[in-house]
Amino acid sequence: MKLVIGDKLNSSWSMRPWVLLKHFGIPFDEVLIRLGRHDTQANILAVSPSGKVPCLVTEAGDAVWESLAIIETIAELHPEHAMWPRDAAIRARARSISAEMHAGFADLRQNMPMEITKHAPGTGATPGVLANIARIEAIWAECLAKSGGPFLFGEFGIADAMFAPVVMRFNSYGPKLSETSRAYAKRITALPAVAAWIDGAREETQ
Amino acid sequence: MKLVIGDKLNSSWSMRPWVLLKHFGIPFDEVLIRLGRHDTQANILAVSPSGKVPCLVTEAGDAVWESLAIIETIAELHPEHAMWPRDAAIRARARSISAEMHAGFADLRQNMPMEITKHAPGTGATPGVLANIARIEAIWAECLAKSGGPFLFGEFGIADAMFAPVVMRFNSYGPKLSETSRAYAKRITALPAVAAWIDGAREETQ
Ligand SMILES: N[C@@H](CCC(=O)N[C@@H](CS)C(=O)NCC(=O)O)C(=O)O
Ligand SMILES: N[C@@H](CCC(=O)N[C@@H](CS)C(=O)NCC(=O)O)C(=O)O
Repeated sequence: MKLVIGDKLNSSWSMRPWVLLKHFGIPFDEVLIRLGRHDTQANILAVSPSGKVPCLVTEAGDAVWESLAIIETIAELHPEHAMWPRDAAIRARARSISAEMHAGFADLRQNMPMEITKHAPGTGATPGVLANIARIEAIWAECLAKSGGPFLFGEFGIADAMFAPVVMRFNSYGPKLSETSRAYAKRITALPAVAAWIDGAREETQ
Repeated sequence: MKLVIGDKLNSSWSMRPWVLLKHFGIPFDEVLIRLGRHDTQANILAVSPSGKVPCLVTEAGDAVWESLAIIETIAELHPEHAMWPRDAAIRARARSISAEMHAGFADLRQNMPMEITKHAPGTGATPGVLANIARIEAIWAECLAKSGGPFLFGEFGIADAMFAPVVMRFNSYGPKLSETSRAYAKRITALPAVAAWIDGAREETQ
């Protein structure tokens, strides 16, 4: 299995399936395409029909694109891991917040772009971004209260992987967060799979 | 089971799970919240934590929101119907294009908003919209060629439901389309479940 990703520094979409695979110890070959170069689009289109990364290439050679579709596919291929919650009702909630992340939060994405090594606290917080952050904090608070933590649905899973890039943005732009959110962000940042992604991003800038 | 939707005239996101449930003959109670009114947000927030429709309320009273999460949940609840293709590799492709639709095509959505009774051929086609349409036509052409049709993966399923609102936009704004796309759009428009949604939209304007 091959996962084609963009730069670890910036590719927030790529981070999600990568962290998921690493966390669950699923072996894969990593192929990194540098973004923003003259041949980036050609390189991506050679593997991913949407012209976007991430893209998973299965053993059989089939391309699977879109972070959420890749993640659903990985979950199907590895039913031995509880990537989604095992309980159907809780799984439906995990899917709701994951799809909300997949389609939404445009203001946050635009004004607080992921750039892992960036440290610019107090910037980027437009009114639209603050509304996005309020919704994210409400999601996290409700999930953590219901599950008891330490992650959104107990142990680390897909919903956490979907929100991991948001944590990277919060680490860079330092918006004001509740105690609960800050503690959750700290746990995500310290997760070995996330720390490995951050290390990779740092190496890219050296 | 209860499906909370917005106006049939405009609520492209609501159309997807509604058409899917109707097509497969799954009984549900429809609750319609009028959009764009002073109490719209309050009415939606009373059922859907994201403040958006559609929202499915299960027998047990749990809210499931985001069209794609609702659809995954419906598919899980009804394994007797092949809503997703039964073949794992083809299902992964169906999930890829469905997630691409869920997160993408912002230009099309913004410049060709769904308004079922609208007839304004030749409008809305900005360069960004044309790029979106080219990608959609490429997806349809590839899927139809591989499956042999009449729908994207053979019989009507989730991927078709995800693209049904795009067909409504094409019917209104009349962009130039390939023969293949036009024939597919015609089949979607004629599908009884889609025709029932269109009838509902027309009734709203009377
Ligand atoms: N919704 C897609 C978004 C993917 C996306 O936008 N990827 C960016 C990089 S993070 C990309 O490939 N851009 C094309 C380019 O940079 O040429 C997903 O979930 O995978
Ligand atoms: N990504 C969401 C989008 C849902 C959405 O944006 N719904 C609109 C209506 S189509 C909405 O509820 N807007 C809130 C409002 O009109 O107050 C989904 O897939 O369900």
